[in-house]
Amino acid sequence: MDKHIIAKLQKIAGKDGVLSTPEDLAVYSYDATFAEHRPDVVVLPRTTEQVSQVVMLAGQERIPLVARGMGSGMAAASVPFDGGITLAMTRMNRILEIDEVNATAHVESGLITVDLQAGVEKLGLFYPPDPSSVRHSTIGGNIACNAGGPRCLKYGVTGDYVLGLTVVLADGRILRTGGKCIKDVVGYDLTALFTGSEGTLGVITEALLRLITKPKFARTALVEFPSLEDASRTVNAILAAGILPATMELMDETAVACIEEAMQLGLPLDVEAILLIETDGSDEHAVRREIEAVEEICMECGARQVTVARDESERSKLWQARRSVSPALARKAPNKLGEDITVPRGAIPEAIRRIKAISAKHGLPIVIFGHAGDGNLHPNILFDKRDPKQWAKVEQMVAEEFAVALDLGGTLSGEHGVGALKRPYMEQAQGPVSIEVQKRIKAALDPVNILNPGKIFPN
Amino acid sequence: MDKHIIAKLQKIAGKDGVLSTPEDLAVYSYDATFAEHRPDVVVLPRTTEQVSQVVMLAGQERIPLVARGMGSGMAAASVPFDGGITLAMTRMNRILEIDEVNATAHVESGLITVDLQAGVEKLGLFYPPDPSSVRHSTIGGNIACNAGGPRCLKYGVTGDYVLGLTVVLADGRILRTGGKCIKDVVGYDLTALFTGSEGTLGVITEALLRLITKPKFARTALVEFPSLEDASRTVNAILAAGILPATMELMDETAVACIEEAMQLGLPLDVEAILLIETDGSDEHAVRREIEAVEEICMECGARQVTVARDESERSKLWQARRSVSPALARKAPNKLGEDITVPRGAIPEAIRRIKAISAKHGLPIVIFGHAGDGNLHPNILFDKRDPKQWAKVEQMVAEEFAVALDLGGTLSGEHGVGALKRPYMEQAQGPVSIEVQKRIKAALDPVNILNPGKIFPN
Repeated sequence: MDKHIIAKLQKIAGKDGVLSTPEDLAVYSYDATFAEHRPDVVVLPRTTEQVSQVVMLAGQERIPLVARGMGSGMAAASVPFDGGITLAMTRMNRILEIDEVNATAHVESGLITVDLQAGVEKLGLFYPPDPSSVRHSTIGGNIACNAGGPRCLKYGVTGDYVLGLTVVLADGRILRTGGKCIKDVVGYDLTALFTGSEGTLGVITEALLRLITKPKFARTALVEFPSLEDASRTVNAILAAGILPATMELMDETAVACIEEAMQLGLPLDVEAILLIETDGSDEHAVRREIEAVEEICMECGARQVTVARDESERSKLWQARRSVSPALARKAPNKLGEDITVPRGAIPEAIRRIKAISAKHGLPIVIFGHAGDGNLHPNILFDKRDPKQWAKVEQMVAEEFAVALDLGGTLSGEHGVGALKRPYMEQAQGPVSIEVQKRIKAALDPVNILNPGKIFPN
Repeated sequence: MDKHIIAKLQKIAGKDGVLSTPEDLAVYSYDATFAEHRPDVVVLPRTTEQVSQVVMLAGQERIPLVARGMGSGMAAASVPFDGGITLAMTRMNRILEIDEVNATAHVESGLITVDLQAGVEKLGLFYPPDPSSVRHSTIGGNIACNAGGPRCLKYGVTGDYVLGLTVVLADGRILRTGGKCIKDVVGYDLTALFTGSEGTLGVITEALLRLITKPKFARTALVEFPSLEDASRTVNAILAAGILPATMELMDETAVACIEEAMQLGLPLDVEAILLIETDGSDEHAVRREIEAVEEICMECGARQVTVARDESERSKLWQARRSVSPALARKAPNKLGEDITVPRGAIPEAIRRIKAISAKHGLPIVIFGHAGDGNLHPNILFDKRDPKQWAKVEQMVAEEFAVALDLGGTLSGEHGVGALKRPYMEQAQGPVSIEVQKRIKAALDPVNILNPGKIFPN
């Protein structure tokens, strides 16, 4: 990067706010995928005003600019393939206000999600979205890819909690959207447009978030199903009975076997699927009766056994199984590639059958788990990236997974986003008219294409 | 309208699908406001393809085009001030599919909302949004202004149930967004962008809607508050206790007096406010315990009396009061002008105090009712439009109501939209950067400005 630009950036963000040594740049060159590319310079702003000045400079000098939280993204959306400026938002991590009466939090976008949750839970409030990365992802990153999580079945995704945003536009102007009102139908829904736009339309610097009252009670059941089909049918039966659990997490037999091998939790190895179901709420009796009704429906639908946690320690033991999936996979193979396809929930059994067929065809294991109530599946291919033949197979297998999702009326991503990795499938997924409309919006808001270029849209 | 154009329109939509006599045009010249302007021709399409051809023709000939449902809008969004073509969507009123497993309905946009509700409720499913116009407004109109209703406190607004749209773009191309997946974060959220865009970005011809399981039980309480402040405090206390009623409707003393005068329901005339609170769900005990908890909180917060309906007939009697507000107002004065301001719910008492001050200052009564849990208030000014002095006052009073909403961190509209009537307040409400961004999006998607021109944006 030109010294003259570095000097200008230092003037904006201070000397300690600009990084340009090779070691520093390497740290900001990747996310949670296999993709990697170094930025030319990293800026760590402390205010929206500084972000505005950096973006304005980038526009004037035609330097690509990529905003980034903690690099936990699953689609290479924050990897700066064109170099340029990476804006690392991690120093803008303050909770600016928690409004208890209106149940809102005003935060900077670099705040870690779990820090927000801890901050509001002290006051009896609750921020429900819980991506697996909750302990190390930022609110800004969550908003940029509209992150989900297990609790989204009952509580909705990140976007459902974004009331308003402060966004630095491509020309450096500062846009404020929304407000503390739950209902607001004035003008176009810019808040929704920027949510999930993966840094291509503006840099999110602050967010006004909706909170709810923290549920006081939860009951958790681990349910064993000899038949995967029955497990899937159960998910629909529970929802059809008018019960909306906080979570209905599915693990297939491969996932269960992986966890058990790694952790010896005493999980059954002779079932096709396990569902982890949690009900919650503010009325202890109602939460208990809901889990009892869930138990009854599960048994009617072919479950072999339902184990309801009797106390918090048993509950946390059941959740340990779900949380162990990823670490357990790491023990099974040098590498894994987890996808994020989503299908209409009635199509889950067929999706799983077809994914298993992909695994059998190519001879690499695929472990399936995910958010069954949402139809959101995470098939993880286990492989060794050092073997180029395996890597070629993996790329083909991912393409086939996407084809399965689209063929069943599903979508490429339920919570990770498109980033760089899913671009080749965009036109197939959304059709040329949708892509053209999206490109028009991108061109209208970022005419010189400096904001996260090369992301979302097919080449 | 040029005969040559009429002939082309007849070729597209059939002779019976094109209206152009003065009497016919008069019918399509207004909505639920005082605004009125005749279109030059009305087209009643039967298919998305016909809409596409009409829009293409309008574009080629530079004729303004306004899409319209049943004309129940509250902001003059569908009044064709520039004449041109009005597309009346009422013949596209079919339910195309109800998918019970995935709980979705695919419908044409001219379907009446209550017909959708009846159709899905037969199957035990439920479409929650319930604007007061539910019996005569269309789904397309509901989506175009992102309509709300009493039940939105618990269940969310129209936009929360729109999974996907079929939209005819300004150049006649057909765009399909979304799908049956509950979670979908692929590309920009075009579904959210078109929802609430009031026909300025495209013509909505079909919608894919999310359904839920119909709640089996409901309990309703009418709560009398000597102090309006206490009523408002109660709303927050109930939500803070983790109870989420389906509705919390507020009527101030003026509203109560109007209803009582018209209907003699035995409502108390010596309280400052009444709250109508309903809990619902699929667990009878839980619903009952919730209303009991509500009762307790109300009494703690200063309620004088809580009357819980013991059966369906008592429940419907309590709702009669809420539903009687509008007809009751019609008996009190020749005209009423109802607004739709929304404030953060903690600001409700201050908003009501200031609105009462506006009423006192100008000497015209303002009746206040609305969705207290959402902070969405409907102040209705009672007046006689034949008196030009009163009409001038009313216009000033509305401006002052908007100023109150904005000053308290609120918004111009919670569920009616901007249309033509609130345009003068848009820049004050959203600031120049937001307006400019919205105009860029409008220009990107409708470069020749034929779709509902002159709506939303300030002149």
